[in-house]
Amino acid sequence: MHKPWEGRFREKTEEFVEEFTQSVSFDRRLAEEDIRQNLAHIKTLLKAGILTKQEAHLLEKHLLDILKEVQEGSFPFRKELEDVHMNIEAELIKRAGEIGGKLHTGRSRNDQIATDERLYIKREIKECVILLKNLRKELVRLAENSIDIIVPAYTHLQRAQPIRLSHYFLAYREMFLSDELRLINAYRLADASPLGSGAVAGVDFPFDRFFTAQELGFRSLVRNSMYATSDRDYLLDTLYACAVIGMHLSRLSEDLILWSTQEFSFVELPDRLCTGSSIMPQKKNPDVLELIRGKTGRLYGNLMSLLTTLKGLPTAYNRDLQEDKEPLFDSIDTTKKCIEAMNLILEGLSVKADRTTPPFGDPMTATDIANYLVMKGIPFREAHRIVGNLIAYAISQGKNLGDLSLREFKEFSELFEEDVFELLDPRVVVDRRKTYGGTSKQEVIRQIQIAKREEGVR
Amino acid sequence: MHKPWEGRFREKTEEFVEEFTQSVSFDRRLAEEDIRQNLAHIKTLLKAGILTKQEAHLLEKHLLDILKEVQEGSFPFRKELEDVHMNIEAELIKRAGEIGGKLHTGRSRNDQIATDERLYIKREIKECVILLKNLRKELVRLAENSIDIIVPAYTHLQRAQPIRLSHYFLAYREMFLSDELRLINAYRLADASPLGSGAVAGVDFPFDRFFTAQELGFRSLVRNSMYATSDRDYLLDTLYACAVIGMHLSRLSEDLILWSTQEFSFVELPDRLCTGSSIMPQKKNPDVLELIRGKTGRLYGNLMSLLTTLKGLPTAYNRDLQEDKEPLFDSIDTTKKCIEAMNLILEGLSVKADRTTPPFGDPMTATDIANYLVMKGIPFREAHRIVGNLIAYAISQGKNLGDLSLREFKEFSELFEEDVFELLDPRVVVDRRKTYGGTSKQEVIRQIQIAKREEGVR
Amino acid sequence: MHKPWEGRFREKTEEFVEEFTQSVSFDRRLAEEDIRQNLAHIKTLLKAGILTKQEAHLLEKHLLDILKEVQEGSFPFRKELEDVHMNIEAELIKRAGEIGGKLHTGRSRNDQIATDERLYIKREIKECVILLKNLRKELVRLAENSIDIIVPAYTHLQRAQPIRLSHYFLAYREMFLSDELRLINAYRLADASPLGSGAVAGVDFPFDRFFTAQELGFRSLVRNSMYATSDRDYLLDTLYACAVIGMHLSRLSEDLILWSTQEFSFVELPDRLCTGSSIMPQKKNPDVLELIRGKTGRLYGNLMSLLTTLKGLPTAYNRDLQEDKEPLFDSIDTTKKCIEAMNLILEGLSVKADRTTPPFGDPMTATDIANYLVMKGIPFREAHRIVGNLIAYAISQGKNLGDLSLREFKEFSELFEEDVFELLDPRVVVDRRKTYGGTSKQEVIRQIQIAKREEGVR
Amino acid sequence: MHKPWEGRFREKTEEFVEEFTQSVSFDRRLAEEDIRQNLAHIKTLLKAGILTKQEAHLLEKHLLDILKEVQEGSFPFRKELEDVHMNIEAELIKRAGEIGGKLHTGRSRNDQIATDERLYIKREIKECVILLKNLRKELVRLAENSIDIIVPAYTHLQRAQPIRLSHYFLAYREMFLSDELRLINAYRLADASPLGSGAVAGVDFPFDRFFTAQELGFRSLVRNSMYATSDRDYLLDTLYACAVIGMHLSRLSEDLILWSTQEFSFVELPDRLCTGSSIMPQKKNPDVLELIRGKTGRLYGNLMSLLTTLKGLPTAYNRDLQEDKEPLFDSIDTTKKCIEAMNLILEGLSVKADRTTPPFGDPMTATDIANYLVMKGIPFREAHRIVGNLIAYAISQGKNLGDLSLREFKEFSELFEEDVFELLDPRVVVDRRKTYGGTSKQEVIRQIQIAKREEGVR
Repeated sequence: MHKPWEGRFREKTEEFVEEFTQSVSFDRRLAEEDIRQNLAHIKTLLKAGILTKQEAHLLEKHLLDILKEVQEGSFPFRKELEDVHMNIEAELIKRAGEIGGKLHTGRSRNDQIATDERLYIKREIKECVILLKNLRKELVRLAENSIDIIVPAYTHLQRAQPIRLSHYFLAYREMFLSDELRLINAYRLADASPLGSGAVAGVDFPFDRFFTAQELGFRSLVRNSMYATSDRDYLLDTLYACAVIGMHLSRLSEDLILWSTQEFSFVELPDRLCTGSSIMPQKKNPDVLELIRGKTGRLYGNLMSLLTTLKGLPTAYNRDLQEDKEPLFDSIDTTKKCIEAMNLILEGLSVKADRTTPPFGDPMTATDIANYLVMKGIPFREAHRIVGNLIAYAISQGKNLGDLSLREFKEFSELFEEDVFELLDPRVVVDRRKTYGGTSKQEVIRQIQIAKREEGVR
Repeated sequence: MHKPWEGRFREKTEEFVEEFTQSVSFDRRLAEEDIRQNLAHIKTLLKAGILTKQEAHLLEKHLLDILKEVQEGSFPFRKELEDVHMNIEAELIKRAGEIGGKLHTGRSRNDQIATDERLYIKREIKECVILLKNLRKELVRLAENSIDIIVPAYTHLQRAQPIRLSHYFLAYREMFLSDELRLINAYRLADASPLGSGAVAGVDFPFDRFFTAQELGFRSLVRNSMYATSDRDYLLDTLYACAVIGMHLSRLSEDLILWSTQEFSFVELPDRLCTGSSIMPQKKNPDVLELIRGKTGRLYGNLMSLLTTLKGLPTAYNRDLQEDKEPLFDSIDTTKKCIEAMNLILEGLSVKADRTTPPFGDPMTATDIANYLVMKGIPFREAHRIVGNLIAYAISQGKNLGDLSLREFKEFSELFEEDVFELLDPRVVVDRRKTYGGTSKQEVIRQIQIAKREEGVR
Repeated sequence: MHKPWEGRFREKTEEFVEEFTQSVSFDRRLAEEDIRQNLAHIKTLLKAGILTKQEAHLLEKHLLDILKEVQEGSFPFRKELEDVHMNIEAELIKRAGEIGGKLHTGRSRNDQIATDERLYIKREIKECVILLKNLRKELVRLAENSIDIIVPAYTHLQRAQPIRLSHYFLAYREMFLSDELRLINAYRLADASPLGSGAVAGVDFPFDRFFTAQELGFRSLVRNSMYATSDRDYLLDTLYACAVIGMHLSRLSEDLILWSTQEFSFVELPDRLCTGSSIMPQKKNPDVLELIRGKTGRLYGNLMSLLTTLKGLPTAYNRDLQEDKEPLFDSIDTTKKCIEAMNLILEGLSVKADRTTPPFGDPMTATDIANYLVMKGIPFREAHRIVGNLIAYAISQGKNLGDLSLREFKEFSELFEEDVFELLDPRVVVDRRKTYGGTSKQEVIRQIQIAKREEGVR
Repeated sequence: MHKPWEGRFREKTEEFVEEFTQSVSFDRRLAEEDIRQNLAHIKTLLKAGILTKQEAHLLEKHLLDILKEVQEGSFPFRKELEDVHMNIEAELIKRAGEIGGKLHTGRSRNDQIATDERLYIKREIKECVILLKNLRKELVRLAENSIDIIVPAYTHLQRAQPIRLSHYFLAYREMFLSDELRLINAYRLADASPLGSGAVAGVDFPFDRFFTAQELGFRSLVRNSMYATSDRDYLLDTLYACAVIGMHLSRLSEDLILWSTQEFSFVELPDRLCTGSSIMPQKKNPDVLELIRGKTGRLYGNLMSLLTTLKGLPTAYNRDLQEDKEPLFDSIDTTKKCIEAMNLILEGLSVKADRTTPPFGDPMTATDIANYLVMKGIPFREAHRIVGNLIAYAISQGKNLGDLSLREFKEFSELFEEDVFELLDPRVVVDRRKTYGGTSKQEVIRQIQIAKREEGVR
């Protein structure tokens, strides 16, 4: 097997080196992008007069055959040919004859791989965006269905204030909305054609780079040929977006794992989404959620991996950059799978409202009791102290706030009247938070309406 | 010293716990933002009828005094008061009396800190953007001044093709342009007001959140109160943007350190920007560049630090989030200093054109020689092989390409004619790369013109 | 202020560069180590005949004065003098006169800083090891005190099998024991003297490196001068050991935070170790535990920071290495504080045995019921299936296993007899796990005895 | 296909969940370890009376058949069976009948996987240690062969002092020696048997854990069953050791890449170890070195990945831990390949001594000239200044130190005499560094002798 670059070499490449430097075992995933690119490049070469119409047609025909074989999984990739580009070129030469050797005119693997990666990223981000949108729609559906379910909101994992469960789901919708922004930012950066940059310095054929970009569906050009061949910013941004999605998913998973414990018992997952233990017959485990949470590790790791590789790298293409692809593929695959997995979990989730609703007199309404005093003119800081003392008293008596008499309330402030007892009802209290984005029914419904409109749900 | 929350507590906080949990030793950097926020909150309370005009006026007056002391560095921060918020509130109560206790009405430290951080980030990103712009302008200036300097472009740190040095500087301009995008994305996410979210569930006072947002110069609201108090997405995006800036700077530093070696001797730094050795009298070291490169470590580390802290965190505020501030401050400070330092280096850089210009016959023009054959109809892959053999021959003879005779050329291909020798001149070859973004003088000048327009340089 | 290296320089160092490159603002923490080193170096110089006895004595006297001022905090560090070494040298010259200029003979800051760092790390690791030992002793004490408390062990955060709480505490003891190994490994690597390596190539004075090492309490020498001045392996190992300690602490914190929730209510922390909310009067938060968990971020970040800085660094000292100190100081400080904080928490912890003990009939004993069948000859896999079906039946009937009749048991296997009901008692089941390291009382007591012996507790 | 744990489940596992949670696609790499473990477990069961001799024999026979098929690659792993353990168990049951269902008695996948991993790590670390040893031997060989080659040592990438090239190679030997320590530390931690820990709480069969450990070649037991099933410390230590090896290799690669540049031209790699460019016929690139350097990224990323996964994880087994295997396999594979690759490079390296040797009068001997004055009584700091001025003068005259006359020397210090010119010869100067570990021929030879003895090379 001849290397395409062996002219200057006087020794055969050592087998270990072939194996160590090859990338076709993983960059073959870019074969479709590479062929699409070749097809566009053929048009560029035709336009530039390097290929005749007939030659172009012949090469296209063979490339389409190869594409079909790639899609069917029958294309014979060979490690001795290093990478996806040389595999396809070599096969083309084998089929089309010497004329296939014209394909690489005015192109280097340096601009070629950047083009493939950008095409790949664009396609994958589009899919991620759709999956994220589906996840958000599921959250909106859940929000709509759980409008009357009251749950404790936690801070420091201590019961803080009662909220509508809908409010919780809408919070995650906001997170996954911000993730879409990150993905779109990465997409926009990727959406520029590096083709025509050559190895590093541009090319000396009369290529119409704008034409090529258009052929490949790129919105613009990467203007500078050195930047085009040495940067991986579009890829980093993608890895970063995936890492943050992973972080958000890990937090949602953590909550749902907690809520699935016997101690919380806020939600239950159907058997079909859980797995069991090899030894303990009673176990039903939320493995899917645990794996989503655990996979955050690889998403962070992949980001760190590429950041490390790029650190201090001399300008323009270095072979170190070959290490960009495996983390990319892994982060994309992981992120897509995790979003889908979470969607499935949310679809299957059943909420046990009897467990989530705080009882009358739960101390979670303490802030509202303090604010009751505020509305009677007590400075908040003083009101906070009064209610704090009241609660300490209740604890010392082993009582809930609802067990106290008005007389006991009055020992802490004369301003307490009968109407304070209304504030011991979590349902009442939830509806008092009427600020924009708050937890009153009317506010939450408004937020759901906005969300539905934004997600295009009717 | 009383804790603002001690009402419910029956024991004094352990001293170690006070020390361990306090944040005022570092969040005091947010004091100005906190006071600005307090001033806006007072207006909100006034509008909501919680404060009278007189009360509002009194609190404002004292806050402005405190602001002055903060700016002068004379404000007495105390660790027993935990954080910047409680320090300022306590001082306000001390000065304004019990009425100061009204300040915290309808607000929690959870929405308060998010507001401070967002204000801080907005301010700092603006400064970073300006510093980056200055750096890009300096690169454009250098590009303009070095239009006639030819340097080798490297791939794999091996000489690849000759380029104009301007082209190199413009490549870095593109990187720092993409960094601006990342900063602006972070800015946009930060540019929304969390105020009115309370601890986690919104508030039950009739606050006009839009009014407050406007008062503080925020473009919009964080809609959901849980998201508002538990996310740190805006902060992560900032840390990430800084990490990528660091990466770009590390690559530029690496190049310039290499170019400053005796072996390359492409550039020289003035004495005023270098330091010496404590032991070796002859040494003149590019420490500034080394530190810029080295500081990439902390920028990556800070990003990883917050990503780790957020991983798997239960929803809504947890005290873990207090760990977000030190990496933020450090990344912002480091990034700003490093950009400035690089700017200074670039200003002081002198290029030794006599060292950078490749000689006639340098093998770096090999691609052009192959393309010469392509234009005579040889498929590129074959042409590549021919020229590869030619070069192997030259090496074996210990000769440069310029030392070969036409007859020797012809032994590799009959198509070589006298005019191939033109292609041995790097200056000629550089000007042949006329594709958009290539290295011909006219193309580079065009890119410089675009750059100047975009940067607003005349 | 003269630079010690300015002889070869024709320009004054730019002020920005002075500020940017200085390290004295943080490496002053090494001042005591630096002076100790200077005192040993003076002896080396004396032995080598570079200093007279009188000169040595004079320098020692002044250094001891300086040491005292450093310890009292009155030594005037100056940024223009770059680092701790030059600050002390300059002050020595100021006081002792020109003779002070002999101190740096045969030494470079490159071997000097490595020596300081190694001394510092040795001291700090010793302290960490003691703190870890205290923490383990506390865990053993808790194990001893909780021998009769039964708690659920969780896998997948689902109730798995009942254990003695002691067993849980002993598990963490094992983790902190492995942490000691990591610290000691780092210590051993650090425990070698780089002095005498000069800038990079050793020195040309007749120094007795073994003598110097002994003077400074080092167990051996760093043999190779290039390795001595360019490696930071000892420091990385320290950062890594801290990161793993942080990880272990984060898991323990996570458990205790969970156990402190109202839903679990397994443990309670005293008021003195908790803090409250600025807005919600009822809140009592386990902030200390949250901070310990959150600080894992900075420990990971610091490790990543130095790994990044070292990646791809050319051999021997580069100024990038100056970035090693801040992560080191921060990781050491953080780790020590976190261990202490956890110790305090454990000391204050009260366990609510009434909440932790599983009831009779809890499905957590299912494995034992399956094993009951195994002992009657049923293959385990079949026994597992039978008991799984039994539990599914119980769930469908809304019953606990204890509510089922023998007849109902027998419907799943005829082998069930009356004695199976014993296995529904968690206390019985716990005591059946008699394998070495299991949860039977006798086994746990044995492990506690071993632990006490190993920790030197009576 | 039946799940081994389906007894308690009333729904079939969703196909997506099967796919998402399966690990057999990667943990099949542990099949041999798993079978070895099964064989030992059978002996344990036999000893405990759970299996009869005949049953044990039957199971062993089938397991050995399965082992053979695994080794031949013909064993049919199935994703529906989740993981390597259940695949082997199911196949055993299929072949041996119901009796195969006894295999899992007293064992959980939680202790089973930990055992497999520990066996795997032990085996792989042994191989890494051998590879590292080979690499060190190669370095010693190079050191021995290059004893008379003088090269510049660099600090700050500026020429610092001349050294013997041997000294450089010995420095890297020290690094790879410290790497062996890290690997051995990981090995020792891994070398303890978790078997008998069950799911989390130990087992209630009379297993002799010491016997099992011995059967599997473990040096000791993991004493606590919770620690045994939830920790991954042995794995983290392995990932960390690999990361540091990667860091060391990245620095060596960086140097060799630099030295291979046309500008340095210190070394040349043979054609068989380089690759070419798809477009530039003249290129010969050190891709192997670049890939080694670049792969540091994935080694760091894998470490960060597992650290992240473990952060804040509740105690005992969680499915998140399944994410530990892919980074492990990848780090081990990468590390081994990179060490081998570096070995190959070193074997093929040729050094161009004509390029590396500094000329007479090179300023790299400035320290020695200053020390010359020191020996005449000038304090070093003053001597440094004098020589710095001398060099500044030479630079201003465009001269090398060797071009200056004694009269010119004397203008800077009257103490200079004719013999100072000896110190302008780098070969002389190198041999003056006679401190232990210095660069004099005799010292370097001594270090080589020590190294040979330590590596067992004759």
